[in-house]
Amino acid sequence: MTEYFTEDASVAAVNDRMAVGINPRVREVMTCLVKNLHAFVKEARITQEEWEFAIRFLTETGKICSDERQEFILLSDTLGVSMLVDAINNRREEGATENTVLGPFHVADAPRREMGDCITLDGKGESCVFEGKVVDLNGVPVEGASIDVWSDNAEGYYDVQQPGVQPRWNNRGIFTTGADGSYRFVGIKPVSYPIPDDGPVGKMLNQLGRHPYRPAHMHYIVTALGFQKVVTHTFVGDDRYLSSDAVFGVKATLIAPYEWIGDNRAIWRSSFDFVLNPV
Amino acid sequence: MTEYFTEDASVAAVNDRMAVGINPRVREVMTCLVKNLHAFVKEARITQEEWEFAIRFLTETGKICSDERQEFILLSDTLGVSMLVDAINNRREEGATENTVLGPFHVADAPRREMGDCITLDGKGESCVFEGKVVDLNGVPVEGASIDVWSDNAEGYYDVQQPGVQPRWNNRGIFTTGADGSYRFVGIKPVSYPIPDDGPVGKMLNQLGRHPYRPAHMHYIVTALGFQKVVTHTFVGDDRYLSSDAVFGVKATLIAPYEWIGDNRAIWRSSFDFVLNPV
Ligand SMILES: [Fe+2]
Ligand SMILES: [Fe+2]
Repeated sequence: MTEYFTEDASVAAVNDRMAVGINPRVREVMTCLVKNLHAFVKEARITQEEWEFAIRFLTETGKICSDERQEFILLSDTLGVSMLVDAINNRREEGATENTVLGPFHVADAPRREMGDCITLDGKGESCVFEGKVVDLNGVPVEGASIDVWSDNAEGYYDVQQPGVQPRWNNRGIFTTGADGSYRFVGIKPVSYPIPDDGPVGKMLNQLGRHPYRPAHMHYIVTALGFQKVVTHTFVGDDRYLSSDAVFGVKATLIAPYEWIGDNRAIWRSSFDFVLNPV
Repeated sequence: MTEYFTEDASVAAVNDRMAVGINPRVREVMTCLVKNLHAFVKEARITQEEWEFAIRFLTETGKICSDERQEFILLSDTLGVSMLVDAINNRREEGATENTVLGPFHVADAPRREMGDCITLDGKGESCVFEGKVVDLNGVPVEGASIDVWSDNAEGYYDVQQPGVQPRWNNRGIFTTGADGSYRFVGIKPVSYPIPDDGPVGKMLNQLGRHPYRPAHMHYIVTALGFQKVVTHTFVGDDRYLSSDAVFGVKATLIAPYEWIGDNRAIWRSSFDFVLNPV
């Protein structure tokens, strides 16, 4: 019955070792992992030296992780895995606003603001009015939707990256829609920024001839009773990194116009409607 | 030209991002890695919570790594990846002695011994005569072959795991064959031992219903001018873990007989011939 390990039967040798009666989902995931992992090693014909390199890479990736730095998430992001997991788990009706990655800079319980309020507290950057509606798939306004927004400042840093430098809750806020489903707030036109690239993932990007930048974007989490939660960004339409986002977060439907208005309140206006999918 | 990320075209989205002119082997390996990694995520339909579990698992695996502990190698070993890499890179003629994993306990520059010497310095265990020949594929003796051997002691620990407890170089030695290609030394019948299982890999084995034990084995590195280096073990034929080695190191051709002799020199005798493949 029991087969010893051979190159040809390597997958079965490992997977047949799992005991009867273990968690069936653990069995399913690990069976699939071993199959694809061995397929990779065989197809790429990984050498002993490349295996040693991989062990060192994973070890260094682990070493740089801390409460403030999650290099394995960066690795997942830069290999498109984070976006893929998000896509698989958030398939929606055509026309519903799509998800993209949450990113590491969301902070729960931001201050609640009134419609029209300004969320930029450091006075830096090109001011921008963000406005639009939250509607259902039929275009009917959604009342009582919560819109949690956050962006970097004009220098490309989130407030949590510069405690003591930026005011707390700079460029963050939570808004709630009224009966007409509309929202409006003033922030800044976001700017592109690099993901942390002084670690193993940065070295990997360099080896792949890739830059570490993300195109400028405003983060949103939109929630409303009876609808799927939307975790997304809107992207600044003319950003130079739009087609080379280091974490593959851009979707065509999430690119928003930024219109120059230059009135006494703001320099830019960006309009975007959120279309919610029922649960 | 440039496509944004979609679930269907996720592999191309990531792989097409690699720049022109990068190292072609880096491109080949990473292209293959991304393809198989995405295939795994899609096929297993990994949930957001499972992805978070995987990030935590990898982070904890990194955290436990130190100069004395390499948990990523344990992970590779227990998923059959180490054996697979070894197999791919050491394909040999039928009849040539097969490789198995090196393991973490080899120490370079062990003392050179005379044929017939005893390598067991702590006086523990059931003594055993190890003997046989080093020959080429035609059965012709190989003169001047170096045989580097090491095993655990009677309590299942290598000397380097118990500095100050076991004598230095306990159950280790290097022998050189003469004109007849034969070797002979006295050690102990090795005992089975668990791989370190107090970390993330141990938890994984537990979830899979697997034990952490390796069947008892004697390690060998056999080298000779003009022949491929053999990194292998011989396994004790009646070991209870023979068909469930935690690292999948057992091959049918590496199981050696242990014959009870009980003479005045030793309790056991184990005979094994090493057949070398030309380079
Ligand atoms: Fe961001
Ligand atoms: Fe061993």
